[in-house]
Amino acid sequence: MRMLEERILRDGIVMEKDVLKVDSFLNHQMDVSLFRAMAEEWYHLYADCGINKILTIEASGIGIACITALVFQCPVVFAKKTKTRNIAGDVYRTQVQSFTHNTCYDVIVSKRFLGPGDRLLLVDDFLANGAALSGLMDLSDMAGAQVIGAGIAIEKAYQPGGRLLRERGLRIESLARIARMDENGTMEFIS
Amino acid sequence: MRMLEERILRDGIVMEKDVLKVDSFLNHQMDVSLFRAMAEEWYHLYADCGINKILTIEASGIGIACITALVFQCPVVFAKKTKTRNIAGDVYRTQVQSFTHNTCYDVIVSKRFLGPGDRLLLVDDFLANGAALSGLMDLSDMAGAQVIGAGIAIEKAYQPGGRLLRERGLRIESLARIARMDENGTMEFIS
Repeated sequence: MRMLEERILRDGIVMEKDVLKVDSFLNHQMDVSLFRAMAEEWYHLYADCGINKILTIEASGIGIACITALVFQCPVVFAKKTKTRNIAGDVYRTQVQSFTHNTCYDVIVSKRFLGPGDRLLLVDDFLANGAALSGLMDLSDMAGAQVIGAGIAIEKAYQPGGRLLRERGLRIESLARIARMDENGTMEFIS
Repeated sequence: MRMLEERILRDGIVMEKDVLKVDSFLNHQMDVSLFRAMAEEWYHLYADCGINKILTIEASGIGIACITALVFQCPVVFAKKTKTRNIAGDVYRTQVQSFTHNTCYDVIVSKRFLGPGDRLLLVDDFLANGAALSGLMDLSDMAGAQVIGAGIAIEKAYQPGGRLLRERGLRIESLARIARMDENGTMEFIS
């Protein structure tokens, strides 16, 4: 998606250790008019797929998911991160490994909000190793919900998540796919 | 706001210990068409106030804030919760006490996204003791930004936060103000 690629080139900052900082428009300050254009692109790509719910993960996925839900005219559910293992209640639970923070955390979704009737679009800001997206697929499987596909803003295509999840049969529509980047300003997209 | 009050009466669940569960439409599963109606109400109330940015706090404020920003046609910034005290970088930082979880946590906002030119609407899902909203005011003050007012979905009007913050001069527009509630199904709103 040209608009997102141009925004990354203009306002993104490549840091040491393979970190792409897009906090001025994507995940700290948020440009919701850009989010709406992204949501319309996903709506175009997933038209006629019968998506009836958006599933995302806190915190930075929530904003993009809500604008997307407005365009799809369906509700959003966000998986919650938790560090307490022994929360009572009827929840689906799985583990997600964070490579950025080098930790592992549990994510949960209430059983009341995910079930066999759901045809899901998974939405998140980044796809790199695929841990978060894989966790959302686990939760969907536990609920018997059907995952129609994923909508990702930025995919680091040189990391293995996208390839591994596509091999598992997941349809992934990433609006900007970075082939390579470095601190000297080089950035190439896969068109 | 009649639509929100009716939704709380229909789908809200009053738990022990003064907890109102609205996770089926407000802060776990999210009804974005309701959020848009709320946003339009705030837009009506704050018309001609020159609001140019929405400030909220993760995680459950983000969805409401993003839909509100779409209606106001301005960006959102969300304050991030952090437990590490010694993060480097240019951030404004304050402490928020959570009465629900009986803990204290730091919230931060990058100095790049809040400044003297900003005329802010603070948005959150709940107002009870006012700790989160007060934290957002602290961050705004540090940045020299002007807080025009707050947009709150549900105010527990029998708790002190709303009164204390209004006494400090903050304009607060809460769309549902609960005068009292109990586990037997009693709920009264202040109209």
